[in-house]
Amino acid sequence: METQPVKRRISVIGIGAGNPEYMTVQAINALNRAQVVFLPNKGADKAGLLHLRHEICDRYMDGEACRFVEFDIPERSKAGAYKTDVKEWRAKVRQIYERLLRDELAEDDVGAFLVWGDPSLYDGTLGILDRIHATGAFDLNVDVIPGISSVSALAARHKVALNRIGESLTIMTGRQLAAGFPDTGGNVVVMLDTQKGLQEIDGDIHIRWGAYVGSPDEILVEGKLRDVRDEIERLREVSRETHGWVMDTYVLSPDGGSTGD
Amino acid sequence: METQPVKRRISVIGIGAGNPEYMTVQAINALNRAQVVFLPNKGADKAGLLHLRHEICDRYMDGEACRFVEFDIPERSKAGAYKTDVKEWRAKVRQIYERLLRDELAEDDVGAFLVWGDPSLYDGTLGILDRIHATGAFDLNVDVIPGISSVSALAARHKVALNRIGESLTIMTGRQLAAGFPDTGGNVVVMLDTQKGLQEIDGDIHIRWGAYVGSPDEILVEGKLRDVRDEIERLREVSRETHGWVMDTYVLSPDGGSTGD
Repeated sequence: METQPVKRRISVIGIGAGNPEYMTVQAINALNRAQVVFLPNKGADKAGLLHLRHEICDRYMDGEACRFVEFDIPERSKAGAYKTDVKEWRAKVRQIYERLLRDELAEDDVGAFLVWGDPSLYDGTLGILDRIHATGAFDLNVDVIPGISSVSALAARHKVALNRIGESLTIMTGRQLAAGFPDTGGNVVVMLDTQKGLQEIDGDIHIRWGAYVGSPDEILVEGKLRDVRDEIERLREVSRETHGWVMDTYVLSPDGGSTGD
Repeated sequence: METQPVKRRISVIGIGAGNPEYMTVQAINALNRAQVVFLPNKGADKAGLLHLRHEICDRYMDGEACRFVEFDIPERSKAGAYKTDVKEWRAKVRQIYERLLRDELAEDDVGAFLVWGDPSLYDGTLGILDRIHATGAFDLNVDVIPGISSVSALAARHKVALNRIGESLTIMTGRQLAAGFPDTGGNVVVMLDTQKGLQEIDGDIHIRWGAYVGSPDEILVEGKLRDVRDEIERLREVSRETHGWVMDTYVLSPDGGSTGD
């Protein structure tokens, strides 16, 4: 006897990175259509992000009955190869999602996942939902709402374009940057630098850096990388001590060029 | 006798790409603080975009007195080298902006430029204002509001992440793509492809393409590039005939990979 796949409706909502006013009208409407909002809890060090998600719900939801379901996200192993660790971690998270979808939603409900920034940039939510759908055990109807990424926010706060005229733009993680500065000649945006990628590069590079961009705790630094690198490292350390977590993004312009020209 | 620089306050507002609901709360608030809204008119073929800007103002402005100033944008020459043509074109646009800032705004006013998508991606507004400020003739106080780019919108509508796990993402124009597919191994997003960049590339590539993304006229195509390239060219032709203009964006995944994994 075949088991019917479990039908579920989900909104993956980009809530913007840092400023509650980065919420789009589309995101607010999607949030208000949800019967259940899933809120990831990554432990004490990320409590700030959980708080921000609650703040967004409080501010923009019109007060109709909606259930909030917090769930724990496991720590990612850093023991093996990066891709392997990520895949193992995603498998664990997938099991958690499957439980949430099965037990916390009804077939006519819409469940909302609130994604920091934009679901399309270095976020695993869509990939995990794809895998769950692909197993055949679930029939997922997924709606995706784009959000203001930390990359867009950084550029706006520094008041520059990310690309230079006639040049490409590369977006990567700190881990990838540590493996080498891309030779495209264009600007490079780095997200998720937990690897001190900045320590690994040299040359005539201009940096525009930001932490907690768009929030009241925002810190911006701009200058020649060789002049401001130590200051940025110091600010990161202080931020980690003060807030328990730091989320920073930066754009590098090779050859001492300026962005936006 | 020294002339004092002309002081002006400007908001550069990203209005999102295609869907009026891509407007953020921050953008709506900024729009409502403006006394003057500048609306570019790129001729009959871009009337659709002017209409969209008006629609956004009608929908989100709270009705207080605000003046709309339409201005013509010259056609860019395609006679010389790309960078030269762009620089000459920007110089012309700069003169237009200088006139607008001088004649259409008072010192206490806020003037708003509404930028399609996100001001940080392949848009010249910030660069032009920088140049104007740098001349010393103006003292510009510029506020930048990030928006949902056509890149984020495309990913959301295809329900995928733009990057693959552990890989970088490159954003470029069709012109740059025609000069060669980047060898980063990661996904490539192409905006502003007026050069038939798609014709120039080959190999085992998966494409997710979209035109008028987020709007009621949206068209999405996904598949192996070799299988869908002709269909995309056909849709582009039909769209140009129907709408007078086409604005499309696409993400390419080399080696037949899928995005978002």
